[in-house]
Amino acid sequence: MSAKKDEDFAHFVFEDSGTRMVGDGVTYPDYLTLRRRVEDWSQWFDGWAEVARDYEERAKEALTRGFTVSRGELYFQASITWQYAQFLWFHRPEEREEGQRRKVATYREGAPHFRPAAERVDIEFDGTKIPAYFRVPEGEANTPCVVLIGGLESTKEEYYLFENMLLRRGMATIAFDGPGQGEYFFERPMVPDFERYTSAVVDYLETRPEVNAARLGVIGRSLGGYYAARSAAFERRFRAAVAWGAMFDLSYFDEMEPLTQHGLRYVTGVEGDDEAERAARRMIDLSDAAELIEVPLYILHGEKDGLIPVSQAHLLDERTPNAKKTVVIEPEGNHCGHNIHHKVRPAMADWMAEQLEASGHRAGAGS
Amino acid sequence: MSAKKDEDFAHFVFEDSGTRMVGDGVTYPDYLTLRRRVEDWSQWFDGWAEVARDYEERAKEALTRGFTVSRGELYFQASITWQYAQFLWFHRPEEREEGQRRKVATYREGAPHFRPAAERVDIEFDGTKIPAYFRVPEGEANTPCVVLIGGLESTKEEYYLFENMLLRRGMATIAFDGPGQGEYFFERPMVPDFERYTSAVVDYLETRPEVNAARLGVIGRSLGGYYAARSAAFERRFRAAVAWGAMFDLSYFDEMEPLTQHGLRYVTGVEGDDEAERAARRMIDLSDAAELIEVPLYILHGEKDGLIPVSQAHLLDERTPNAKKTVVIEPEGNHCGHNIHHKVRPAMADWMAEQLEASGHRAGAGS
Repeated sequence: MSAKKDEDFAHFVFEDSGTRMVGDGVTYPDYLTLRRRVEDWSQWFDGWAEVARDYEERAKEALTRGFTVSRGELYFQASITWQYAQFLWFHRPEEREEGQRRKVATYREGAPHFRPAAERVDIEFDGTKIPAYFRVPEGEANTPCVVLIGGLESTKEEYYLFENMLLRRGMATIAFDGPGQGEYFFERPMVPDFERYTSAVVDYLETRPEVNAARLGVIGRSLGGYYAARSAAFERRFRAAVAWGAMFDLSYFDEMEPLTQHGLRYVTGVEGDDEAERAARRMIDLSDAAELIEVPLYILHGEKDGLIPVSQAHLLDERTPNAKKTVVIEPEGNHCGHNIHHKVRPAMADWMAEQLEASGHRAGAGS
Repeated sequence: MSAKKDEDFAHFVFEDSGTRMVGDGVTYPDYLTLRRRVEDWSQWFDGWAEVARDYEERAKEALTRGFTVSRGELYFQASITWQYAQFLWFHRPEEREEGQRRKVATYREGAPHFRPAAERVDIEFDGTKIPAYFRVPEGEANTPCVVLIGGLESTKEEYYLFENMLLRRGMATIAFDGPGQGEYFFERPMVPDFERYTSAVVDYLETRPEVNAARLGVIGRSLGGYYAARSAAFERRFRAAVAWGAMFDLSYFDEMEPLTQHGLRYVTGVEGDDEAERAARRMIDLSDAAELIEVPLYILHGEKDGLIPVSQAHLLDERTPNAKKTVVIEPEGNHCGHNIHHKVRPAMADWMAEQLEASGHRAGAGS
């Protein structure tokens, strides 16, 4: 990229994804600081890494001084800052991997100190361990639980604030990295049967006494919206599913942003661009599954989504005749409605509380 | 103001106070929406009021649908939006009062549904009722408690997110409006002995079985930093005090922003500009009290504070020889460090947790 294009691209990412960053937990003052400091794309990773390392230092200091809550919160801030350091940073694989690794490590440091704590669990499956974080709302017992699935550029660690929304509404949460995602990508790239991994997580939940396994839901974000729908089709223990951003297939592959195409090919783990594209197209296809979804399904999509066209949401709606649906197409929403996260995220959490009869919903209050 | 100045002034308030707004709870997407919609100062109140009314509608809908947590959160969003609708809006007293009234009413609607709930209490004192909100961290007993005092343009309702920080760290909270503040202004304008009202709140806390009255702290913001110091001087039941923005006296009155001068005169309730100014200068003066402060005192001030000069923080430091002090002057901080709220606010909460031996601090962990 030329210097001019670099400036433009950094500006574009800040503008386009600023609300997503803040919605996921980047503080607004940090966002402003980074916009000032990172003048072009070449400075992106280093600029964010500097802020992330500062959080790591402060988290260590909090530990030394006995500030347990701040220790957790500062490590979360370090983690989400590393997330956006490596965001779209495909052209420097070593730095991208460093960002991913530090994101995972700092989140793990903070997790035991979150309120409520996030318990790291490694679920044995097929000779591997599926990494997950499990959280239970304080002061509740026998709670419903929501399984959370990340996307192409989001992992279990970016669910922290959304988990808090679910927890406040009386639901336990378990967020995991499946094939092709986050730290598990290095164990297993994309697979055609992601639902088997979700089911392994459900098997695990049945062993937890805190959870009422008759009240389980699943939510997936972006590409995770595809995985959530797929999991709801094959895993019959779910009572409700949310596609937080719908995806039915890759028929629109040619119209995608080059960076997203690159990302999809990358997570297949397949060598060669054409081969990887074919693999992705084959593995992301809900034709065989959509009719099997029989639980209530919430589809959220932004009309102005520039990554996954809204036609994918309509397709998912049309092809799921056996599910009772709530379809929310936000006219001003961008990808996953990140630009109106303050509106769409609590609404999904509320809907799930209603489906799972969680304490954040009072039955019989009205319609 | 001319049309041009109106544009400039709206832009100035958004720029200058954006981090304060977001720090107090205005969502970043709302902030962006308002910046787009409110093109000049004349549109300020109506622009914010429209967003606030939308939150009120959505809160009512949440009630109808049984979404109890969202009901509380949406009413809080309505309240904080009304706060910034009437912010600095002195030239239209009727709208300003409407904003204040709606802020108070919407907060009160939401309070029982906060997690943890905020209990409205009206503390009888001197033939009046001091309005306050009391919150207790879930799952804790016999907890320390922090008394929270607002400023000239902030009230008990703006403490919601900061309360959450204290609650997570194991401290109960009680935020109240004293003389000259919020809804109590209409009962009683500014007084020279604010500490008597703080003591009435402490008397009330001694009646609450949830609270360990041997572990009480006080925090005041902006002008409230003056009241907190004053209260710590005369009320011996506090174990620690924070001046979140220091103020010692009004010796700098002539150099203040005209709007702040206006605000200070206004809350005295005294007729006539000169008379009101003299009254404010007489009532805001820590000369008689500073030496009496013997508890640990945390002074936070932004070096770049444009409302209260940093010299006031140095003055408070110099004149409190009997207090063990922690003085934090943030080189890049503006008024109350609002532009770096993500940094300064948790730090104050941590310090208070340490002083009050709250569960958010583990003693003996290090230095």
